[in-house]
Amino acid sequence: MNVLVWYENKPLPEAVEAERRIYPNGIHGALGELFVTQPDFLVRTRVMQDTGQGLTDEDLDWTNVLVYFSHKHWRDIADDRVAAMQKRVLEGMGLLLLHSSHASKIFSRLMGTRTQCLRWREADEWQRVWTVNPAHPIAQGLEKEYFIIPKDETYGEYFEIPQPDEQVFLTTSQGGEVLRSGCCWYRGLGRIFYFSSGHETYPVYYQSEVRQILINAVRWVHTGNKRIGWPNWARESGFIE
Amino acid sequence: MNVLVWYENKPLPEAVEAERRIYPNGIHGALGELFVTQPDFLVRTRVMQDTGQGLTDEDLDWTNVLVYFSHKHWRDIADDRVAAMQKRVLEGMGLLLLHSSHASKIFSRLMGTRTQCLRWREADEWQRVWTVNPAHPIAQGLEKEYFIIPKDETYGEYFEIPQPDEQVFLTTSQGGEVLRSGCCWYRGLGRIFYFSSGHETYPVYYQSEVRQILINAVRWVHTGNKRIGWPNWARESGFIE
Amino acid sequence: MNVLVWYENKPLPEAVEAERRIYPNGIHGALGELFVTQPDFLVRTRVMQDTGQGLTDEDLDWTNVLVYFSHKHWRDIADDRVAAMQKRVLEGMGLLLLHSSHASKIFSRLMGTRTQCLRWREADEWQRVWTVNPAHPIAQGLEKEYFIIPKDETYGEYFEIPQPDEQVFLTTSQGGEVLRSGCCWYRGLGRIFYFSSGHETYPVYYQSEVRQILINAVRWVHTGNKRIGWPNWARESGFIE
Amino acid sequence: MNVLVWYENKPLPEAVEAERRIYPNGIHGALGELFVTQPDFLVRTRVMQDTGQGLTDEDLDWTNVLVYFSHKHWRDIADDRVAAMQKRVLEGMGLLLLHSSHASKIFSRLMGTRTQCLRWREADEWQRVWTVNPAHPIAQGLEKEYFIIPKDETYGEYFEIPQPDEQVFLTTSQGGEVLRSGCCWYRGLGRIFYFSSGHETYPVYYQSEVRQILINAVRWVHTGNKRIGWPNWARESGFIE
Repeated sequence: MNVLVWYENKPLPEAVEAERRIYPNGIHGALGELFVTQPDFLVRTRVMQDTGQGLTDEDLDWTNVLVYFSHKHWRDIADDRVAAMQKRVLEGMGLLLLHSSHASKIFSRLMGTRTQCLRWREADEWQRVWTVNPAHPIAQGLEKEYFIIPKDETYGEYFEIPQPDEQVFLTTSQGGEVLRSGCCWYRGLGRIFYFSSGHETYPVYYQSEVRQILINAVRWVHTGNKRIGWPNWARESGFIE
Repeated sequence: MNVLVWYENKPLPEAVEAERRIYPNGIHGALGELFVTQPDFLVRTRVMQDTGQGLTDEDLDWTNVLVYFSHKHWRDIADDRVAAMQKRVLEGMGLLLLHSSHASKIFSRLMGTRTQCLRWREADEWQRVWTVNPAHPIAQGLEKEYFIIPKDETYGEYFEIPQPDEQVFLTTSQGGEVLRSGCCWYRGLGRIFYFSSGHETYPVYYQSEVRQILINAVRWVHTGNKRIGWPNWARESGFIE
Repeated sequence: MNVLVWYENKPLPEAVEAERRIYPNGIHGALGELFVTQPDFLVRTRVMQDTGQGLTDEDLDWTNVLVYFSHKHWRDIADDRVAAMQKRVLEGMGLLLLHSSHASKIFSRLMGTRTQCLRWREADEWQRVWTVNPAHPIAQGLEKEYFIIPKDETYGEYFEIPQPDEQVFLTTSQGGEVLRSGCCWYRGLGRIFYFSSGHETYPVYYQSEVRQILINAVRWVHTGNKRIGWPNWARESGFIE
Repeated sequence: MNVLVWYENKPLPEAVEAERRIYPNGIHGALGELFVTQPDFLVRTRVMQDTGQGLTDEDLDWTNVLVYFSHKHWRDIADDRVAAMQKRVLEGMGLLLLHSSHASKIFSRLMGTRTQCLRWREADEWQRVWTVNPAHPIAQGLEKEYFIIPKDETYGEYFEIPQPDEQVFLTTSQGGEVLRSGCCWYRGLGRIFYFSSGHETYPVYYQSEVRQILINAVRWVHTGNKRIGWPNWARESGFIE
């Protein structure tokens, strides 16, 4: 399974040092290191500063799963890259969107809503991640009905997303917010998972439960679908390319 | 629209006085008073001490909507009454289940899971009721994305329910729990709404947002369905009565 | 309730005469005549040839529900009109999409998929519209589990839509196709219903069951939502306008 | 992965010979032979005539997935066996229900509806199985948007089931019926898939697309969950055993 880890890699000046201390190789580096532990994953990392913003047609054709972490500069992704990503998802690419990627163009395009819209606060609060669908593949390996992340950015509702096809996690914060934090959608031949944890100035991606979820999620969004040219009649009708 | 308000009416000894102070006519009385404010509702109240446990065939045939509040004595409802309620829901009766009714036999029968299973704590905590589907009919009339109930019993996940067909509310507590607290299901020709707020020793049902939700919910679960004998072939096959 | 009926009004040359014979005042005229029978509906009709393509900001602000019928010229709708419609739906406008409107830009934008993609055939075939959620408000008033449309255009799967939040109808054709033909979605503060019946050269919109569904659907997509400025924090954050 | 294939094994007298000709070792034999082709499956078969109706606690504890095929004698399963199966599903057992098993007590108990209720006809008709969620794991490996089963029993709506959490397949028949034929549900820690194809007097289970689906389905319903004693607080509260 080919896994492309993409990171915006442009932290705000005030966060640069904290991020470097926690993730010396960047978030893409940390995620890459996690995924290479899986013998059946072939991992590549890209950042927004790379050629074609790190999302060239070659990159997108190569990968089966795109792990995507954007942040404040979500508006900078070129429209043709967004269109390419959407097409690939509809043709079978899995998409794992992390944390601030809720604001990404690709997410709001696939959802049809203003996914930028949620409540947020950086306040060093603890978060509790609750499993509300323990039968779900992404929830496998978690021992208890919730686990605690000692510090993360607080996100809260109202989160303008379509009702998830499957709701796996809900996250509550010390301040009393809640977010639908682990959400699955099917779009065409592809699968999408949004997971809210992981502000880049906290060591969230080193936590064992989170690492379990990330690996489960990559496996779940991976469809193995490569139905080039399907469905045929729509193509022949000229409706879709 | 005929509305039957049913209450177990058997509070624990230690709660009798608090409940009487807050709800002098019982919870059924308070809910009945709320619903008669609607010109198109015809309201009847019953308690478990009534004939046929207040759920006779005549009661169930009369009503379009059953508003149900059970508590510690949920095991006492006779199986034939549970079967009658299930049949009526499948034939078009609306069912509004409140608070501790999550443990009721009728709820777990319609869901197929052990709905008794949730986390609970009586600790005078505040609760925040978040609207996560603001387009939903049951959420109409609420001004903000959440409202606060100053004191209520805390319920929390893991709540063994099927994924709701529509998730309208989530409730967080002072202690950090969350519950899928406003949940819709379709079963046969009927509609069901579970709403978690309303411990009987707090004045929750006098709160304006809660009253708005209760009225919306009665209207939503009401189907107007009376398709006696439908679907025909299954009846003719002898599969169902 | 304000209802705006919008029709593309540009039939293919070979269909002009058939359509005129069946719908002398156009489809928008026929639908308008149906909706004015409801005492609480205030109806306006627009066509693509009107000012602002019949979808001006004033039109969209005026209406609570937009009934939309586009056909072969779906590509002609200006992007700023599509954006305006999307914004209005997310802010509470109901949207009823009919038949060939599956190809519309507004539909594919709200869904995030290539909704143009389905199988179709004009072959004078009968269609059976099956009710698979008889508890749903849109299915109220239909006596049997299916009804027949003697002749309509045949649509079939694979239809590239997200899984509907609620699946109300499925339609089978004489040739053996099936389409998820009555589909509900929630998007932000708004509600959407797609209904596939109604090729403009057949008298489908005079059929009583279809008329019942259309009226139910307008009532269902109507939210009564006008939460201008909600949710506040996202607006203040600059995330959304 | 342990897979228990259970078959009622009591065909109607008039069907005995046809079934023996097509499935010399019974349906359980044929399914067992299919599943042993998978190197990671450990397969056991049981029939209703076995000890404990072939569903002893030892059988249910041993297996990870129960493949269940009941027919006319669905009423004969003892209530304590049904309760045991339900408990095991809620604790993580996968359940694959085939064809006439729609009428089984375990299915209607997990659904809360009268799943016996559907339209049926034995008329040697062809069936078309349409994939409406091509991203779904159970749909993997199917090349086209539909495949044909030359002859099978016709099932049709209205099928009294809750809205599936995921709708994978729809089946149309030569006579114009449709059934929601490939349906997924989550219940507690377990997963359930109902698949309608496979009347025992036709060679349906030798067909390659059907065999692909059956294998995919066993893999999908398998959760790997064995969270004995979870969730704890409900157990300590005495709510569930």
